[in-house]
Amino acid sequence: MIERVVLLSTGDELTTGKIADTNAQWLADRCFTLGLDVTAVLVVGDDRERITWAWQSAFERGDVVLATGGLGPTSDDLTTETLAAFLGEDLRLDQPSVDKMRALFERMNRPMPENNLRQAMFPASATILENPLGTAPGYRVSCDRVIGGKTVKRHLAVMPGVPREMKSMFDNTVAPWLAELGGGAPPAVRVFQTFGMSESALGEKVTALVGDEARVGYRASFPKISVKIMLPGTVPDAETRLDALAARVRDALGGVVYAEGEATMEEELGRILREKGATLAIAESCSGGLIGHRVTEVPGCSAYFIADYVSYSNGAKKDVLGVGAETLKQYGAVSEETAREMAEGARRRSGADVAVATTGIAGPDGGTKERPVGTVCFALATAEGTISRRYQLWGTRDWVKLLTSQIALDWVRRWARGLPVLESGFRS
Amino acid sequence: MIERVVLLSTGDELTTGKIADTNAQWLADRCFTLGLDVTAVLVVGDDRERITWAWQSAFERGDVVLATGGLGPTSDDLTTETLAAFLGEDLRLDQPSVDKMRALFERMNRPMPENNLRQAMFPASATILENPLGTAPGYRVSCDRVIGGKTVKRHLAVMPGVPREMKSMFDNTVAPWLAELGGGAPPAVRVFQTFGMSESALGEKVTALVGDEARVGYRASFPKISVKIMLPGTVPDAETRLDALAARVRDALGGVVYAEGEATMEEELGRILREKGATLAIAESCSGGLIGHRVTEVPGCSAYFIADYVSYSNGAKKDVLGVGAETLKQYGAVSEETAREMAEGARRRSGADVAVATTGIAGPDGGTKERPVGTVCFALATAEGTISRRYQLWGTRDWVKLLTSQIALDWVRRWARGLPVLESGFRS
Repeated sequence: MIERVVLLSTGDELTTGKIADTNAQWLADRCFTLGLDVTAVLVVGDDRERITWAWQSAFERGDVVLATGGLGPTSDDLTTETLAAFLGEDLRLDQPSVDKMRALFERMNRPMPENNLRQAMFPASATILENPLGTAPGYRVSCDRVIGGKTVKRHLAVMPGVPREMKSMFDNTVAPWLAELGGGAPPAVRVFQTFGMSESALGEKVTALVGDEARVGYRASFPKISVKIMLPGTVPDAETRLDALAARVRDALGGVVYAEGEATMEEELGRILREKGATLAIAESCSGGLIGHRVTEVPGCSAYFIADYVSYSNGAKKDVLGVGAETLKQYGAVSEETAREMAEGARRRSGADVAVATTGIAGPDGGTKERPVGTVCFALATAEGTISRRYQLWGTRDWVKLLTSQIALDWVRRWARGLPVLESGFRS
Repeated sequence: MIERVVLLSTGDELTTGKIADTNAQWLADRCFTLGLDVTAVLVVGDDRERITWAWQSAFERGDVVLATGGLGPTSDDLTTETLAAFLGEDLRLDQPSVDKMRALFERMNRPMPENNLRQAMFPASATILENPLGTAPGYRVSCDRVIGGKTVKRHLAVMPGVPREMKSMFDNTVAPWLAELGGGAPPAVRVFQTFGMSESALGEKVTALVGDEARVGYRASFPKISVKIMLPGTVPDAETRLDALAARVRDALGGVVYAEGEATMEEELGRILREKGATLAIAESCSGGLIGHRVTEVPGCSAYFIADYVSYSNGAKKDVLGVGAETLKQYGAVSEETAREMAEGARRRSGADVAVATTGIAGPDGGTKERPVGTVCFALATAEGTISRRYQLWGTRDWVKLLTSQIALDWVRRWARGLPVLESGFRS
């Protein structure tokens, strides 16, 4: 029975910030799906002492160690050498691996550099894992270690750092091996995507509902916050119990939940508009095209999306959307009145069922006492009429734009779902 | 004198693979630039025992610990609590932080949930670091630790996990503090932002120019690739020597370099359009608003940006941009002819000096034999006339959109700089 996994990534490119450790993310996701618990991710550069420290820590903290990187042919590739020393094993040259490598170079009609032989050296007890996509094979080792005075079983797989080679090797040879070793059962999970309630307010509400019956996780990736409730796969009736909890959470959060599972706001909006058979037009000013960009991230959006009129100048607002010169003069470009005329103009011009409009001050300049940076007016025009509201948003320019796009999409979603539109936004 | 840094990232979202640890990458890059050596990155989930182990390991392996995450208001945010216990310090409530938080909630016209007070609790000896972009302040601690029988000085900064808050806090308060503590000499660095040449082609060209005279780094964050040339701060005349090398690189790469330093394509384009006093309009189809979104990420863009006509349906192309029904029928919506009429229509309608248009198939559906997914036509209309070209792009929907927006912006940049527009794109 294995349960705890440590991921170990080596490479100077990671510790100098040249690349993000996407291998660790990918493997952590796989482990989560397999029901294995990643207790730590360790990242160290190409340095003997540091890698040796990492081997030691990894064997202490995990039943299984999944290591990537440092299998290349150059002198800064130290994974195998340090591991053999750590395990107290000799290195052996694996003749079948040498033959394969030579054959590969012959096929490419290139001489094999002698330092490639380093990639055919393995700790004596290793079982080799084939790499059909590259020259460096991986390997696995199972051994007994004395940790804290007790002898324990430890398992280790070493894979190349090149993501596609690593992924293929993991799925084809490492994952089946982990299953044989008896990995845990996948946990039961429900995810809610929310907009409009702060993390702390969600926390209070959901904690009160769920109590100790399940584990709750929050992930704020503004402007959305995901709420995840989980039960270990080993709990009896985990799925049924989680269904009951999910129903409670769903009821309590109401319209704040815009999707369940991993859908984005724009995907969910697209699904609803398709279902309803409704078409959409957009009129943007301060958000500058971001709403249209998000709507068109969804494949097949041409079924409901007609046009986005990004009228940044007053001239464009008048010309394309028919906003009155009088309206602009009397109320200003950033006003509910202008937003209403923008939405109505977009709906009229496009023939769409629903049109949403935004006009505001994204900053950092352009704010006044009456209309500080972050003032954004929204309007929604439909066959039933036009509604509008002014919001006071906050933060940097990109953040005001993002929040503006989120509110606009949420307005359309709420309209299409028959929810109270003007309740969109931030409540605690 | 500080030298060795350990980065510590906490959060279940990291150990379950929901997100990649981009904070660690960003901080590793900053440390590298400051001449500091990242000896390890440690990632653990929201668990008391694991976080405590990570504090212990981090203090053993680094003079400085930079920690991110776990400062939220909910019960799974354990950073401060575990740290205070580890340091043997009490937690104290910081009244100024409470006052600021209350004021923020008052401005938003919302009651403050009581568990937000958790974010105003700090280890007794902590110095608070302001967070102008969020509710959770960071903090720093310097202390003596006994490690391996010796008393050593250790320094620690704790920052929020939200990337934008963390980055702003690091640059504004942590980096100056590290400099005070006596970090290594920052290296001399020159950065070129490029578009249109592959990493391997850039590599060959730049390596041939620079040789062993400086260290060269490449960072591909598609569709851009940054080229960084560096000399250690300890090298005599590092800045002067690097200036000479930079001049060589600049000459050799020509129009492929769109900016030097950290400017984005849209920032650089904005700078050039302002300098030239030229105005811009956009007509988008497949890119869906992304070009307008990028243009409006730049503060003050209203000085040159007039409107973006996102005409997703054929009807909108005819209505707003005046694309001929005959053109659409004879050549199709995805054709150079349609792109030309879109650009000309946008220029005429807006009165802008330059208008750029895109129309294509972003996929995954909608491709045909003649026009496979990734076919995108571009046009640029100016007083000198209209030019157009068809490109065959590749990749997923979001990638085709991103590349389309990059080429469109690069076309306008090239036009404004007097460079050959049709040479934009990918050459090796």
